[in-house]
Amino acid sequence: MRVGFAGLGIMGAPMAANLIKAGFTLGVYNRTASRCEPLTEQGATAYPTPVALAAESDVVITIVSDTSDVESVLFGENGLASGLKPGSAVIDMSTISPTKTVEFSKKLADQQVSMLDAPVSGGDKGAIAGTLSIMVGGDQATFDRCRPLFDAMGKNIVYTGPSGNGQKTKLVNQVVGSLNLLAMVEGLRMAEHAGLDAQKTLDAVGAGAAGSWMWSNLGPRVAERDFAPGFMVRLHQKDLRLAAEFAGDLGIDLPGTTLTHETFTKALDQGLGDEGNQGIYKLWEK
Amino acid sequence: MRVGFAGLGIMGAPMAANLIKAGFTLGVYNRTASRCEPLTEQGATAYPTPVALAAESDVVITIVSDTSDVESVLFGENGLASGLKPGSAVIDMSTISPTKTVEFSKKLADQQVSMLDAPVSGGDKGAIAGTLSIMVGGDQATFDRCRPLFDAMGKNIVYTGPSGNGQKTKLVNQVVGSLNLLAMVEGLRMAEHAGLDAQKTLDAVGAGAAGSWMWSNLGPRVAERDFAPGFMVRLHQKDLRLAAEFAGDLGIDLPGTTLTHETFTKALDQGLGDEGNQGIYKLWEK
Repeated sequence: MRVGFAGLGIMGAPMAANLIKAGFTLGVYNRTASRCEPLTEQGATAYPTPVALAAESDVVITIVSDTSDVESVLFGENGLASGLKPGSAVIDMSTISPTKTVEFSKKLADQQVSMLDAPVSGGDKGAIAGTLSIMVGGDQATFDRCRPLFDAMGKNIVYTGPSGNGQKTKLVNQVVGSLNLLAMVEGLRMAEHAGLDAQKTLDAVGAGAAGSWMWSNLGPRVAERDFAPGFMVRLHQKDLRLAAEFAGDLGIDLPGTTLTHETFTKALDQGLGDEGNQGIYKLWEK
Repeated sequence: MRVGFAGLGIMGAPMAANLIKAGFTLGVYNRTASRCEPLTEQGATAYPTPVALAAESDVVITIVSDTSDVESVLFGENGLASGLKPGSAVIDMSTISPTKTVEFSKKLADQQVSMLDAPVSGGDKGAIAGTLSIMVGGDQATFDRCRPLFDAMGKNIVYTGPSGNGQKTKLVNQVVGSLNLLAMVEGLRMAEHAGLDAQKTLDAVGAGAAGSWMWSNLGPRVAERDFAPGFMVRLHQKDLRLAAEFAGDLGIDLPGTTLTHETFTKALDQGLGDEGNQGIYKLWEK
């Protein structure tokens, strides 16, 4: 199986490296071409355009920032779609609109190309370690065929159903994670203003019914005023925009998600976009 | 050490039983006297009033519903304070106002009685199993002296500093847990409306950065429409009222906590007070 990989950012680069390590023959494409170099040094072949990559691949993985970026790498000038052969597959691992995902999938199906949506959770650390959670939507047979690729990049791999379901599950994940993050921030703000010891508070609260990944992993970083990104405010805000749009499509009211969306939008407006998502703590600091 | 125990509710009764099992000589008092029977059958001595209990105890533990209940069992007619001897101690394990706790502690200090605030987390299951998290504030020497009592009732026992700090830490705990709970509810609501499989969603989200105790423990109950209480909406609402009041005292704005407080108040108003706290899910059901 010849594998193409488009999008060598913070997430994509280590994921592509894990595919090479697992023995796959990898072709790569990136808008900023210089980002291909670390991968070609590891044995990948670089292509100048998506269409050139697609022409030489049985499966192409994409992982870029937003819905419009996926649309452009698939259907833009020299896009993947122009080079993909019937019987080939696209795996989009970006976090984008579920509605648009279903549209893209139908468009590709017209040319006998199967598309999986397979967004990930676990941050750059998970991408490097190959321990990502991967939520996959699309045709089950294509999922089964691509399973070895997922195994090379992730650990908790869940097939969630038809096209779009991977993205929908990822948005659920972001809804939950964002409120857990806000929970951690509000708890530590209260502790700080109350004059409590941060470490004792982290210990006392983390072991019980208020425990969470966010509390245990990002709580200590906030306590040390470490706002370096695992996952950036800018991208978290984008995910919450998608979640809010999707809630709107579903006609449901999610007041907590409205609040986290507003909070992250405010953080972006105040120039905190490149901070780690725990950096929303700064919104309430003098 | 002769131990008195006042308040034999869902939490208090199994906590008192664990003290008996650990070998302590226990005196008990409860406003509804019949609740003493299961404990006297296990060897405890029942007293008709708090003052009578206090007169025969070196340490008295209280665990009742709200601030006014603690005030009344301590300082009301025939209250504990009238019977407590100099050198004795009170351990209040209720969740109540930190400000009032400090007041009560000072009042008892005037008669040479030491008071610890030691609220718990872990629900009736933790109380029965003796695995409660206990957050203790007050005099360190009194804490050290009472440590064997805490060991008989709990597992994760954290000394958090001077009087009131246990209650403050507990309110932090409730701030965090409530938002994690709302996170779970909003995530599962989105999943349901999106037509996702509940179990696959629970699996995909729980293992990653959005994981929490609430997601893993109460998420499956919501998926099965099991709204039986581990911890009741009514008491959770009370804790959020205390947290909101405390945030007001501190002069800090906690928008997420304002939202969870409003949400639980609405649930109480709509007659969901005796449901388990995961029952706030019902607020958005037809």
